[in-house]
Amino acid sequence: INSSTKINLFPVPFETEKPTKILECDKKTPDAHVPRDSRLIRLTGVHPFNCEAPLSVLYDSGFLTPTELWFVRNHGAVPEVLDSDVLNWEFSIEGMVEQPITLKLAELLTFNQITIPITMVCAGNRRKEQNVVRKGNGFNWGSAGVSTALFTGVPINEIIKLAQPKHTAKYMCMEGADKLPNGYYGTSIRLSTAMNPAMGVMLAYKMNGESLTPDHGRPLRVVIPGHIGGRSVKWLKRIIITEEPSDNWYHIYDNRVLPTMATPEMVAEDKSWYNDERYALYNLNVQSVICYPAHEEIVEIEENKSYNIRGYAYNGGGIRVGRVEISLDQGCTWQLGKIDYPEDLYRKSTCYPELFGGKLDMPDREQSFCWCFWNIEVPIMKLSQAKDIVVRVMDENMNIQPRDMYWNVLSMLNNCWHRLTVTKQENSNALKFDHPTVPALTKGGWMEKVKEEGRELTDGFWGSRSVAATD
Amino acid sequence: INSSTKINLFPVPFETEKPTKILECDKKTPDAHVPRDSRLIRLTGVHPFNCEAPLSVLYDSGFLTPTELWFVRNHGAVPEVLDSDVLNWEFSIEGMVEQPITLKLAELLTFNQITIPITMVCAGNRRKEQNVVRKGNGFNWGSAGVSTALFTGVPINEIIKLAQPKHTAKYMCMEGADKLPNGYYGTSIRLSTAMNPAMGVMLAYKMNGESLTPDHGRPLRVVIPGHIGGRSVKWLKRIIITEEPSDNWYHIYDNRVLPTMATPEMVAEDKSWYNDERYALYNLNVQSVICYPAHEEIVEIEENKSYNIRGYAYNGGGIRVGRVEISLDQGCTWQLGKIDYPEDLYRKSTCYPELFGGKLDMPDREQSFCWCFWNIEVPIMKLSQAKDIVVRVMDENMNIQPRDMYWNVLSMLNNCWHRLTVTKQENSNALKFDHPTVPALTKGGWMEKVKEEGRELTDGFWGSRSVAATD
Repeated sequence: INSSTKINLFPVPFETEKPTKILECDKKTPDAHVPRDSRLIRLTGVHPFNCEAPLSVLYDSGFLTPTELWFVRNHGAVPEVLDSDVLNWEFSIEGMVEQPITLKLAELLTFNQITIPITMVCAGNRRKEQNVVRKGNGFNWGSAGVSTALFTGVPINEIIKLAQPKHTAKYMCMEGADKLPNGYYGTSIRLSTAMNPAMGVMLAYKMNGESLTPDHGRPLRVVIPGHIGGRSVKWLKRIIITEEPSDNWYHIYDNRVLPTMATPEMVAEDKSWYNDERYALYNLNVQSVICYPAHEEIVEIEENKSYNIRGYAYNGGGIRVGRVEISLDQGCTWQLGKIDYPEDLYRKSTCYPELFGGKLDMPDREQSFCWCFWNIEVPIMKLSQAKDIVVRVMDENMNIQPRDMYWNVLSMLNNCWHRLTVTKQENSNALKFDHPTVPALTKGGWMEKVKEEGRELTDGFWGSRSVAATD
Repeated sequence: INSSTKINLFPVPFETEKPTKILECDKKTPDAHVPRDSRLIRLTGVHPFNCEAPLSVLYDSGFLTPTELWFVRNHGAVPEVLDSDVLNWEFSIEGMVEQPITLKLAELLTFNQITIPITMVCAGNRRKEQNVVRKGNGFNWGSAGVSTALFTGVPINEIIKLAQPKHTAKYMCMEGADKLPNGYYGTSIRLSTAMNPAMGVMLAYKMNGESLTPDHGRPLRVVIPGHIGGRSVKWLKRIIITEEPSDNWYHIYDNRVLPTMATPEMVAEDKSWYNDERYALYNLNVQSVICYPAHEEIVEIEENKSYNIRGYAYNGGGIRVGRVEISLDQGCTWQLGKIDYPEDLYRKSTCYPELFGGKLDMPDREQSFCWCFWNIEVPIMKLSQAKDIVVRVMDENMNIQPRDMYWNVLSMLNNCWHRLTVTKQENSNALKFDHPTVPALTKGGWMEKVKEEGRELTDGFWGSRSVAATD
């Protein structure tokens, strides 16, 4: 090695043990063909499969989430695709195009292949906090509905161009192979987003260097960086170019932030609440979560020692998180933390080997499509004087996480300040930390406790007192 | 007119009386060549000229702000350009380009001309509220630092292409003809923004159909839709393509949202606070302001009558405002209002005549670059039971105005909920409304009153009590 040799370092997936067996609980479900990791927390009973990893397991697994620990959002049974059928998997591009086409996955492999790191997030991430405040129409996501992988596939704009969209076309509708009570799962995004190479929308068939697993769309899915996960259609069968947004049932009745005053009763009675496209979610909003201290973590109080508070953050639309701040006095004063963007390691690299069969397409990308990690070192004595820790981030467009929860009936995009309570232990010289909730129907977290004590959570004061007492 | 004739309606500027005389106060300043409207409120004494219109005058003047009522942000003397020199005005494109060029305004007129409606906003809009909380390093903008016009000019990407930027270039620096204590005013934006036709960045020489006035960049300026006004360089002389953001003094030391814990003393001592490009402002953030009730407006309390609360809103980056909500109980409950986007009238038009010498370039634009107007009808009896009115908007990316002010030393992008107090009049059956502040050094507004009574404004509780009392 001579002195001019540069060493390139960027994250590649760790080798982990992939699940190969069918879990006992899955054997009697339509998903009996899908091997899964038993550490995943199921959020909707056994079937359909919706899950997240325990938050600490997710955080500890690092920048690239091992595929078997990814969150999963399935609306129904997972389509079974035999090995022998993978290359013959067909999908169409139709609708407002000059030249409708049907392609096989094998043909897709003859196009320009790219590999890029992308974080996906369920729009329901942190929903349980909303459900504790007031039960809405959705199941209980904790704060681990987020995962990252290197995706390999074909830039979607290059494929759509083949079909020649008509000038008046505005939307790209997508439909999967998962047949559900209200038809195949489908949704849409703006055609201009799909056609803009900078936005990185791709037809992916690999994740972390391996073929897509059944839960993640085997053999082919759309991946839309910066958007909520619900737009990245799995088991892709049809792309339909249209003038209007998708009229698929799942596009209309899911993934919307309805106005806060709309209750479950109001939207059940008057479906027109769902007809306003302005309320449909596309880009993620700015978010941060404290991962350590973990829920119910115990920390000894010791002078001259500090604790490294740390967690993740992300934002939508390719815009970066610009700063992280924590407060130990409920928002009166703030400290600045450090932010680490591992995806920049791909950008800084000086050589770009083909990775998993695709060009590592990062050096010229200004948009940022991955989560980042933040940390703040705090003296334990200072923590021992605090009632709580709150974190907030601001993005580079100066949008900031709000203190107050925007409660909404589908409990989407909950991104108010993430708050942990700090409690001095009675029988030891130690602090205990509580997260707001624990995922699924499991009891736990400071919010439920406040509610059980009859205190108010809807007023944004975390149960400390009611707003009626404001002066 | 036969039955197939369609009538096209879109806003065009009203005919207003243009100032032609030099105001007495300007006669002894370097701006003695600039006719101005006497209604404008001066924010930095007589000179340099920084002003906004009275809020009601601005609102009443409608979607297109008459040029003479536009807000102005001048750092120094206005360059004087004689009529005979206008067409010979030269500017250069240099730096990391294959082919540096110099163009005259007369040559610019031979390129593709477009006309589009664009709202510009000073990043300091609503700064006075921050200054009342704690004085920072900036002068007192009220809430009328926002204006809209039809701009005519040439898409900047078409001009920059001529100079052939090098592959590694990332920024477009700009410099004006206004010589200041720290050099010519200059700043930069991302080159990718400038080169993307969808973002609408233009070299403009007309505003509302007339040549630019001296205060607005005569004869040539850059206009960057969706960005803070400070990036749209007036009296343009140089475009410099670079690999790094501008190192101009005004780019470094202005138009940043520094972290909230940085005080005037801290940043004076340690200039490195200004070296973090993550804190530089480009896109505007989401904002709304109540215009009516006006400051100190008196409304009779009458049963069965209602009041139409109304104001403006805007957002950056081409993203729309998706909803407006008001609360009469300090954020406990919210009502949904109506939003009107007059710029859609240009989109809906079916014929596109040339307007002011440019193609009305709107029908295919998905980005939204103008303010919108909102209103909510509220029974006066309900208002009479309220202590205050607050408004907030959420954009289509689900970013929401925060309740809490993000105080920052340059007091930029203040966008917390806009709040009016409601006071029952003692000697009459009427309500009086107070805005938070009045612009410039003039006294008035509920914030100053709270401060004078020794109550706390930094805690986000609007003076009602201190956070120390939280439980």
